[in-house]
Amino acid sequence: MKRITATADSPCTMPAINPRRLMRDLNAIGRIGIGDRGAVTRLVFSIKELRSRQVLIHLMRQAGLKVRIDGIGNIFGRLTGNDAKAPAVLAGSHLDTVVHGGKYDGPVGVIGALEAIRTISEHRIAICSPLEVVCFVGEESSRFGFSTLGSSLVAGEVHPKDLANAVDSQGTKLADVLAGLGITQRNLRSLQLDAKSLKAYLELHIEQGPILEAIGKRIGLVTSIAAPSRFRIIFTGQADHSGTTPMEMRKDALVAAAKLIEFIETICRRYSSMEKGRVVGTVGAMKIEPGVINAVPGRAELLVDIRSTSAKSKALVARQVKLKAEQIARSRRIKADVLTIREENPVPLDKRLLKITREICAAKKIIYEVMPSGAGHDAMQMAKITPAGMIFIPSQRGISHNPLEWTDPNDIALGAQLLMETMIRVANEKL
Amino acid sequence: MKRITATADSPCTMPAINPRRLMRDLNAIGRIGIGDRGAVTRLVFSIKELRSRQVLIHLMRQAGLKVRIDGIGNIFGRLTGNDAKAPAVLAGSHLDTVVHGGKYDGPVGVIGALEAIRTISEHRIAICSPLEVVCFVGEESSRFGFSTLGSSLVAGEVHPKDLANAVDSQGTKLADVLAGLGITQRNLRSLQLDAKSLKAYLELHIEQGPILEAIGKRIGLVTSIAAPSRFRIIFTGQADHSGTTPMEMRKDALVAAAKLIEFIETICRRYSSMEKGRVVGTVGAMKIEPGVINAVPGRAELLVDIRSTSAKSKALVARQVKLKAEQIARSRRIKADVLTIREENPVPLDKRLLKITREICAAKKIIYEVMPSGAGHDAMQMAKITPAGMIFIPSQRGISHNPLEWTDPNDIALGAQLLMETMIRVANEKL
Repeated sequence: MKRITATADSPCTMPAINPRRLMRDLNAIGRIGIGDRGAVTRLVFSIKELRSRQVLIHLMRQAGLKVRIDGIGNIFGRLTGNDAKAPAVLAGSHLDTVVHGGKYDGPVGVIGALEAIRTISEHRIAICSPLEVVCFVGEESSRFGFSTLGSSLVAGEVHPKDLANAVDSQGTKLADVLAGLGITQRNLRSLQLDAKSLKAYLELHIEQGPILEAIGKRIGLVTSIAAPSRFRIIFTGQADHSGTTPMEMRKDALVAAAKLIEFIETICRRYSSMEKGRVVGTVGAMKIEPGVINAVPGRAELLVDIRSTSAKSKALVARQVKLKAEQIARSRRIKADVLTIREENPVPLDKRLLKITREICAAKKIIYEVMPSGAGHDAMQMAKITPAGMIFIPSQRGISHNPLEWTDPNDIALGAQLLMETMIRVANEKL
Repeated sequence: MKRITATADSPCTMPAINPRRLMRDLNAIGRIGIGDRGAVTRLVFSIKELRSRQVLIHLMRQAGLKVRIDGIGNIFGRLTGNDAKAPAVLAGSHLDTVVHGGKYDGPVGVIGALEAIRTISEHRIAICSPLEVVCFVGEESSRFGFSTLGSSLVAGEVHPKDLANAVDSQGTKLADVLAGLGITQRNLRSLQLDAKSLKAYLELHIEQGPILEAIGKRIGLVTSIAAPSRFRIIFTGQADHSGTTPMEMRKDALVAAAKLIEFIETICRRYSSMEKGRVVGTVGAMKIEPGVINAVPGRAELLVDIRSTSAKSKALVARQVKLKAEQIARSRRIKADVLTIREENPVPLDKRLLKITREICAAKKIIYEVMPSGAGHDAMQMAKITPAGMIFIPSQRGISHNPLEWTDPNDIALGAQLLMETMIRVANEKL
């Protein structure tokens, strides 16, 4: 069979991925850890998650890829190109899930990359750089509170020592889990990849949000990944009898909290109508004390999450939220404490990769949306050591981390096709 | 010793109660069930509560009163007047407490009445009607969810059958507790007092609110007892990812709840500036789901308590709160369910008793406040079968149901003195 050379000028020469094989393998992974109402639970290092990795290794070997597993369990399946020494083009995501999650958050990127590479291999498409499918360990924070565990280690963004104290909800230490699997500290110290060995990282992922569906587009090209600022805000007033305390003598911590909750919505709505620097803000968790029907709440604790792809907008909103909390407390003669839980920087993705995906979409007449990612992904870590790009496909009703998570198989196939064509161009062109 | 006859015209002939004896006995009761930080726990029918009743019986007998204990354990200590057949003037309260309560909520009214009657007895004050100290069982709802248990039975306001299903937090049935104490259904059926045997019921109680302290008055004369309307309001929106869901596409149940919480404060403040028909409204308990920092709340459940001594004002406010909940939900395209937990009617106290206490205060130059009671009391039940009146004394910082509950001993003594003088006049005058 003649090797086909694909370039920007000849997109029509591209082979098509095999959508049935793609869905067959996605469903095979999706059945591992499935429970009631189709909920999928594959917590990192659980027996189910380990089994899904084993299936992936099997599929990689079937496809003729050369499999390498690093010290923590990240899996790399390689297709060598014309130049075995050239830096590799990686594509992947993760197979672990949250508790009672869906089938697509993660696996779409791993199996999509596998399908892309095996299509390239089958059709003997000429590639210069090696291609690799990668499956990162522990992208979800659900078990040990660490997100993007495997990719953070590969990018050198987390030191193995930082993992020492992580414990899951059963009281099991991450350190003991690793030791049980035969993973030593020495294994962990040698995980960081050499930036010179990498040409790019690409990740196909479901949007996990409602935008693509709402605007009727099938592809999202990601410009940057938003980062959260997280705060714990505690209002301390005074618990009083709900029957005997006149309204004007109360120090109700819940009413103060309610005013702040409204303010967060109002200010974020103001920022969300902006062209750039959109901000979303959420009070997702809340505790009040004493928390009984016949007592005025004396204490209210809120967990606030503010995200943006613009560090500047995020900082502005966070500052105003803090000031507002203090102003509300002052005007009601109560106390407000604002504690910072986390402050992260947004991660811009690579403009050259974005340009390539735009060109492919334009040539194929795919109507796409250029958009930021509100959620975090492994690409966020990989962007620190290599040019990184992301392709989104729609999530029905924006639902994710939920058994109702669903994406149309045609969109999954389209995403994998776009990923494949992007990988070929990135492997063969100078970035 | 010559018998003294007290009338409205000769207040100066009144003897003084013994404040040291009063505080000694109050403290003796207060030590039963005391724990860490001075918190007192005497849940109804607990060994501690039973012990406090035994001490009371002992004190009543020491004072020469004739003790009668009814089928559920309400205790009556009687001092016979000139006319043994005349309807009796009762005064009392309860000895049971909440979990981690204080020393004064309840015992002040029981020991205050005991001190009043023993002073009358010692000084051989001529009384026409018999006088009785009464200690009601289970005024607090903390154990079985029933408040004013003993007085409700005495007033015929609750049928023994209604108690059948009550269970405490340990899973112990009220029926089993009663059986264990040898209390039969037959005992319970014969508790209701004949209204003709009663002339009046008086109750001395701490305010459990901040008003008297704030306005610098030592006595409150109660006009009526507020009743609660209680609602469970549930907003159902949609749980979404806090990072990927744009502000304008959210159905955040917590923001809807926050708007209602603010509204309840606003409308109650408007009603609280009125001369009559004051209303207080509180959201004391709240639950949100999923309740994690990275999810937009899809469900928020509020427990709302609205109280007033005006049935009309209460109904008006309750109606507006319900309408507002629906309006908020409609405007945010979410759902609001309003469930009524309880609707009670305010209880007016007797005007003639109020007039007598006002006259005594005026004659003694006690600066008093005529006020409603925001909290419920045994007097609320007794008012249904006999003229009932209440005397409040200040609560420091309005704190109650808490180990920090405190009232100045001078105020307790003043309250007991006023109670005594009122009892004498009520016993000797035609109402």
